[in-house]
Amino acid sequence: MVRELETGLEENTKGHETMIRKTRLFTPGPTPLLPAAQFAMAAADIHHRTPEFRALYTRVLAQMKEFVGTKNDVILLSSSGTGAMEASVSNLTSPGDRVLVLSAGKFGERWSALAKAFGCQVDLVSAEYGKTFKLEDVKAALKLETRAVFMQATETSTAVRHDVQGVAKLLHESGSEAMLIVDAITGLGTTHLDMDAWGVDVLVGGSQKAVMIPPGLSYLAVSERAWERMEGTYNPRYYFDLRKERKNAKNGESAYTPAVALIAALGAALDYIAAQGGGDLAKGRYQLVENAETISAMTRAAVQAMGLKLFAPDSPASAATAVLPPEGVDSGVIVKDLKSRFAAVITNGQGEMKGQIFRIAHLGFFDYMDTIALIGALEQVAVGTLKLKGFEFGKALIAAQKVYADKINSGK
Amino acid sequence: MVRELETGLEENTKGHETMIRKTRLFTPGPTPLLPAAQFAMAAADIHHRTPEFRALYTRVLAQMKEFVGTKNDVILLSSSGTGAMEASVSNLTSPGDRVLVLSAGKFGERWSALAKAFGCQVDLVSAEYGKTFKLEDVKAALKLETRAVFMQATETSTAVRHDVQGVAKLLHESGSEAMLIVDAITGLGTTHLDMDAWGVDVLVGGSQKAVMIPPGLSYLAVSERAWERMEGTYNPRYYFDLRKERKNAKNGESAYTPAVALIAALGAALDYIAAQGGGDLAKGRYQLVENAETISAMTRAAVQAMGLKLFAPDSPASAATAVLPPEGVDSGVIVKDLKSRFAAVITNGQGEMKGQIFRIAHLGFFDYMDTIALIGALEQVAVGTLKLKGFEFGKALIAAQKVYADKINSGK
Repeated sequence: MVRELETGLEENTKGHETMIRKTRLFTPGPTPLLPAAQFAMAAADIHHRTPEFRALYTRVLAQMKEFVGTKNDVILLSSSGTGAMEASVSNLTSPGDRVLVLSAGKFGERWSALAKAFGCQVDLVSAEYGKTFKLEDVKAALKLETRAVFMQATETSTAVRHDVQGVAKLLHESGSEAMLIVDAITGLGTTHLDMDAWGVDVLVGGSQKAVMIPPGLSYLAVSERAWERMEGTYNPRYYFDLRKERKNAKNGESAYTPAVALIAALGAALDYIAAQGGGDLAKGRYQLVENAETISAMTRAAVQAMGLKLFAPDSPASAATAVLPPEGVDSGVIVKDLKSRFAAVITNGQGEMKGQIFRIAHLGFFDYMDTIALIGALEQVAVGTLKLKGFEFGKALIAAQKVYADKINSGK
Repeated sequence: MVRELETGLEENTKGHETMIRKTRLFTPGPTPLLPAAQFAMAAADIHHRTPEFRALYTRVLAQMKEFVGTKNDVILLSSSGTGAMEASVSNLTSPGDRVLVLSAGKFGERWSALAKAFGCQVDLVSAEYGKTFKLEDVKAALKLETRAVFMQATETSTAVRHDVQGVAKLLHESGSEAMLIVDAITGLGTTHLDMDAWGVDVLVGGSQKAVMIPPGLSYLAVSERAWERMEGTYNPRYYFDLRKERKNAKNGESAYTPAVALIAALGAALDYIAAQGGGDLAKGRYQLVENAETISAMTRAAVQAMGLKLFAPDSPASAATAVLPPEGVDSGVIVKDLKSRFAAVITNGQGEMKGQIFRIAHLGFFDYMDTIALIGALEQVAVGTLKLKGFEFGKALIAAQKVYADKINSGK
């Protein structure tokens, strides 16, 4: 468009480049930040060896127990989620231990890599990308000497939900002494989990996910069985020594310098989640999961109404939705177009899935309006850029509108 | 819905109450805050009689001239927009002066009230709410002794755009010596204005509008003619003495303690607007107006596709859109429902218009995704709450999608 400016300037621009475009993350971590957490983070100018910090830390650890929904101690680490995954391996295994990894994507593969890095013998049950594994295969792979089972609650790379309760039940019925260690980094707050009732031994989470704060903190909820196991394991660990952290936490401190601002942010986010649950963090977590379920259902309906296929139709996670692009289209085109035209950031596939799927996140601080807006933008991409055959404006939006109305009205 | 919580709790809730709902302003001031301005505001811990402040103030005043698009000096005041309106009356008139007020809503009426408060004899050209005035009526009302003409660029209370250029032209052709004083509080950044070329004498603006920062600052661009006029006027003024402010501004200071944090925020917002214009504030303002034009056109198409009527179909402002509710419905129901179900804040009519219109703002930091999301939410209200006859999901969204695609594709 040639625009004539009052200043006498003439300008050649693409239409969208003249529009305001607010950057919005629709990525499965980092996720949109809660404003109250941002403010808490900015204000967190306190020293970590003071009564002020001890009060904060003690409060946040107690809140985390309620949020996870466990009687177990929760340990916070200043690291990414991978750090907490490593901690669960290094603290709970010894070199030569036989462990079982359930893998259906990049993060399942990370469990294998970690277990091998710490000298474990890894048995593997894998499922094709986009699928979850069969419980009978897990049962068959479980050995008497299996010391630990590692799995994801939701596999972020493929947007698949795994059956944690099923695996836990199977382990208990088999009388196995294996620890069950669950990476719930994107699962917590997007899928219902009850670690105590199900008998999960370690649950791993990260800060830049459903808890609405930036990356830099991870956490582990650790069962009494797991603490006992640690008495006899001898893999090397220092920064990630969980028993040392537990001991220090009893005094309201962390073993090493903690990410103070993120801890303050986490406290503010947990306050918000509790408020959403009428003051109850368990209710707040429940509603956070329901929120993700509703907006992921809107999104699945919308992309299917566009004639696109879900990558994980059988066991979709509500943490994120993975979608196959139209035939012959690189998914990167959609990712790039949403970014350049609308400043909406979604993710491509990871590793060998790059170009083959795109992923839209729902975990944490997302609402109806975020979701309908992204679907609107996706329609613009479908019509304007992809020239998607048989698709016209409104089809995806209407599908999403109906899902929302049905879900919400059934709640009235 | 009765939900059974994992905690064994049972809960009765309305569906939407369990959802995350981010508060979003769609109000014609305050408007959504620019994050960079929020950060600048939070960081603005400087004293106002220091070189640091003088550098900031001097820079922001220079940016404001470019943003307004004038060679005239721009004066900043720590007050609401009404303060700047008062300043233009108290500085440019003397008791007994005959002035002409062009009024078509609450803010036109405020010009009358202000002029009367300062002892002026007010001639009035008014238009019905929802309309703009006729230039021939303005011409007829203009007297030889008219000392000033007061008008709005856009009347926020009715979402009407007035013809500033037409009035300016008429004044100049008539050889009138009247000052033309334009309240562009919601007009600047939403309608193209060229004060120097048109011969506007005073242009009044406020901070919580298109410049994307909170309330508390107002500004006036003042022509040389107006500065000369002030030499002879003798209405009482002290805090709002513009000549004193101009003198202090030359030294990088304000006469009284300024709202430092807001000035820092304004600087950051103007940096953003300049960046949008490729480093040029005039281009940035031009694009800001185009942005408002596009999203207001989307909104008008959407509400009309719902079968609703625009309150100001003939001369709609792009600062905001005023809409008549369905027959027999109080507009407050829609305002309230959008708030409670989606945390989206729109405004009711003001004064006697309360209950009769609802208003959706587009001025400042709004984008496509905000707009499509609000239209989605409005569809939910129309279907779920209003049970609007003949309306079904998608109609409004499709209308908006098409307007956006047409506008943007014509720009490719």
